[in-house]
Amino acid sequence: MVVLPSPLHFSTSFLSSATASTIVALCVFFALLCACIIIGHLLEDSRWANESITALFLGLCSGLVVLLVTNFQSHDILVFNEDLFFLYLLPPIIFNAGFQVKKKRFFRNFNHILLFGVLGTVISFCLISLGAFLLINRIGEVNLDIQDILAIGAILSATDSVCTLQVLSQDETPLLYSIVFGEGVVNDAMSIVIFNSVQSLNFSSINAVKALELLGTFLYLFCTSTILGVAVGLLSAYLIKTFYFGRHSTDREVALMMLMAYFSYMIAELLELSGILTIFFCGIVMSHYTWHNVTGNSRTTTKHSFATMSFISETFIFLYVGMDALDIDNWKASKASIGTSIAVSSTFLALVLIGRAAFVFPIANISNYFVTRESAKIEFRSQFIIWWAGLMRGAVTIALSCNQFSHSETTSQEDSALMITSTITLVLFSTMVFGSITKPLIEAVLLKHSKQTTSDSADYHEELGLLFLESNDSIEQSNNQPFLRWMMRYPATTVHYFWRQFDDNFMRPIFGGWGFVPVVPGTPLTEEEIS
Amino acid sequence: MVVLPSPLHFSTSFLSSATASTIVALCVFFALLCACIIIGHLLEDSRWANESITALFLGLCSGLVVLLVTNFQSHDILVFNEDLFFLYLLPPIIFNAGFQVKKKRFFRNFNHILLFGVLGTVISFCLISLGAFLLINRIGEVNLDIQDILAIGAILSATDSVCTLQVLSQDETPLLYSIVFGEGVVNDAMSIVIFNSVQSLNFSSINAVKALELLGTFLYLFCTSTILGVAVGLLSAYLIKTFYFGRHSTDREVALMMLMAYFSYMIAELLELSGILTIFFCGIVMSHYTWHNVTGNSRTTTKHSFATMSFISETFIFLYVGMDALDIDNWKASKASIGTSIAVSSTFLALVLIGRAAFVFPIANISNYFVTRESAKIEFRSQFIIWWAGLMRGAVTIALSCNQFSHSETTSQEDSALMITSTITLVLFSTMVFGSITKPLIEAVLLKHSKQTTSDSADYHEELGLLFLESNDSIEQSNNQPFLRWMMRYPATTVHYFWRQFDDNFMRPIFGGWGFVPVVPGTPLTEEEIS
Repeated sequence: MVVLPSPLHFSTSFLSSATASTIVALCVFFALLCACIIIGHLLEDSRWANESITALFLGLCSGLVVLLVTNFQSHDILVFNEDLFFLYLLPPIIFNAGFQVKKKRFFRNFNHILLFGVLGTVISFCLISLGAFLLINRIGEVNLDIQDILAIGAILSATDSVCTLQVLSQDETPLLYSIVFGEGVVNDAMSIVIFNSVQSLNFSSINAVKALELLGTFLYLFCTSTILGVAVGLLSAYLIKTFYFGRHSTDREVALMMLMAYFSYMIAELLELSGILTIFFCGIVMSHYTWHNVTGNSRTTTKHSFATMSFISETFIFLYVGMDALDIDNWKASKASIGTSIAVSSTFLALVLIGRAAFVFPIANISNYFVTRESAKIEFRSQFIIWWAGLMRGAVTIALSCNQFSHSETTSQEDSALMITSTITLVLFSTMVFGSITKPLIEAVLLKHSKQTTSDSADYHEELGLLFLESNDSIEQSNNQPFLRWMMRYPATTVHYFWRQFDDNFMRPIFGGWGFVPVVPGTPLTEEEIS
Repeated sequence: MVVLPSPLHFSTSFLSSATASTIVALCVFFALLCACIIIGHLLEDSRWANESITALFLGLCSGLVVLLVTNFQSHDILVFNEDLFFLYLLPPIIFNAGFQVKKKRFFRNFNHILLFGVLGTVISFCLISLGAFLLINRIGEVNLDIQDILAIGAILSATDSVCTLQVLSQDETPLLYSIVFGEGVVNDAMSIVIFNSVQSLNFSSINAVKALELLGTFLYLFCTSTILGVAVGLLSAYLIKTFYFGRHSTDREVALMMLMAYFSYMIAELLELSGILTIFFCGIVMSHYTWHNVTGNSRTTTKHSFATMSFISETFIFLYVGMDALDIDNWKASKASIGTSIAVSSTFLALVLIGRAAFVFPIANISNYFVTRESAKIEFRSQFIIWWAGLMRGAVTIALSCNQFSHSETTSQEDSALMITSTITLVLFSTMVFGSITKPLIEAVLLKHSKQTTSDSADYHEELGLLFLESNDSIEQSNNQPFLRWMMRYPATTVHYFWRQFDDNFMRPIFGGWGFVPVVPGTPLTEEEIS
């Protein structure tokens, strides 16, 4: 720890030395975060760099400085803390994603999202485990048991939804954004479920029943987590609508929204459900109901403060991953040669590439085969981008890897350290390389290409159809024939229509929402707030 | 710890048991915070209750529930954590106070604030120490050494600026608010300095030189902390003005303001200065310069999100103090009879009452004697309210008390525990009783009384004078005679005039501020934002 000379005998700081170390760490992180924001801003126009890569790079540099200052000894600041990540950094990101997601598009692609997220993760897990089983133990003197191999399968199946959010744009490539991002959220939950199952599985009796039990667990978790998130979101909407806090205080409304969102995550973790799924759906419900029940000032404040918190957490995570990569103890403990390290990392990378290709292209093509509507088909270029954008591995991968190998009893210390360092190498490489290439790649493959306009314009027409339905609720009485034709052609639209009926007649009178709460005088709705 | 049954064999939660306990604690706190907000809202119209008292009461109740559930065993959730308080809860409150304070009024009362805050705290410390020295060791079998006695003097001198903020209104009683609140901020810093000096002092050689050294330390801390806060604030203004973040992202602006504010606190703590003073002045500078350099959305967001964070922290602190009061280990360790406990607590209360009266009335009357201007005089009714509003003791008192007596080596365990429980009793009593009586008392003594209007209207006239100066910068050329008369009558106004000249000609062109940054199209300034 850096000890600064005290200029005077008396000091105001009566805090303990543990606290002093915390203060140093906080100072370093806050200074670095400010630097990331400023550098990220200056690099805004660059196609290659983004905030994640800047943060990762700055994290690596400052980790190096810490190592130099501490003379290459281990330092607390460089050790990855899972609790910090899962309890404080991940929730705001996922909540904000749910809060800002374009709901219509997300739910229209819901079956794609589930297919890629659930089935895809299972395929990827099986393939990566098989590949690891066949390859890893042949490299150098590595010796892993079956449980470690399966854990690696789960660890490498967790895509990084955070970095994906930064390289894909919700406005430029809406279809891809909703599929890749939605898949990411489901995939996070799925890979954590698989990982835990692997950790708790008894390997003396693997059979079909176990596999079915695993699937049952996932379905149970998915449904209960979603219901919990929706319930907390609706409760917040009901409370704010009933008590009408804005009359007295904007702060109370904003505080209640923040607290209840975070509460949904915590209660899900307490009940051993998937907090990620819960807070994501809580965010969706809050943006649909609660957000419309508060005053104009609260709307602006929540919208931007949630985005800001998410932004700070994202930047912090990448900074942290960068610094953590230089946790010298792991590198020292791994006695493997450079050749072995590179071989393991490359194997990991190859497995990730193949594992993802093995489900993206088949699932997309099979789903294309069943879908009759041209606009819902995923053309090959888009499939390629879906494959590519999901190759990045991030903080979830590192967290799971540390969890599996940090305190392993069955695996030798050298092998454990090698697995952790290889995972870190994979994360750094994939984020830096895939992350910086993705933006230019999307531009080259999709945006500048004429083919894309077809799919986009079809999409646009459908959007128009939805708008048409929305603006004209009495359509079924007045003009039944064209509506029926719509219904036959666009079943998703029909579901949406019935949902709107239910929403307007039952949900919104109870929970509020757009147009169902009197506007407070003096807080005019701007166009941005309504959208 | 409450362990909930897991419904299925596999669990998503691979977090450690320490984390599980954290999750339970977070769940409890978030649920309680939501309850506080809703109950506080429902009690809004009550003159007697406020959010602090609701939170304190809820904290006590839930502490009791925890005790019943754990069968009166000690529980982590009930132990006061100084780091949590000083590193995470106090900074947002003090920053927001600086950010929202009415700057003109604050600086006009600056000499009063310094007199009450510095001289007053010293007088209070001396008197309470003397009283404790004469009384405490005669109660029961209490046996404290001179260092403990002096520490008690410092501990009991720390007023609670948080609760004061809730019972005094900036709009109803602006003069009192700025004096009592400003005094509170200086007093916090001062009592912590005295406390640390007492802890590090060598009692074999107390002499006049030591006392002067103490004063020198305080002046050094006050100046350097202020300069640091101002410097960080100006840096944030300069960065945001130069890079003009709003062009790209509202989130970046908001994030940078939050991070730099918190950074100022951390760097002050790192340099062993007073973080409280630093972040307070950082808040003042940020609201004067930085806030005007950002977009309209960012202005609304920062204003309300800072207020919300401060609100959550305040509520949390009182909840925490309430729960902490039931830290059963302290009550068990203190083997004193109920009579002794009550005697010590009552002595503490009496010392606080006398210690505060001993400086408020003399200082106010002496300052009245030197001030010629009628509006700057503090009449007796106001003196009474200043005395009364500063009687509440809060989290700083508990934090200092825990720090002194939790790990004391020289004092017996019984006496240490007795001191801690007596401090807690004092805090609970003063917050509950003085806190709930203050609002009705102010109404009875000041607001409904005709005398007040004189002082307020004089104040109002002066305010008009300031406005007049501001709106007419060329007054000195065109009409010199009346201006000189103003200058002679209101020296404070003259200082303000020169400050404005300096601000307009030198500071604002560099650091931005109201009217010095082009307004972004589409983000009109509302009246509220300008004020």
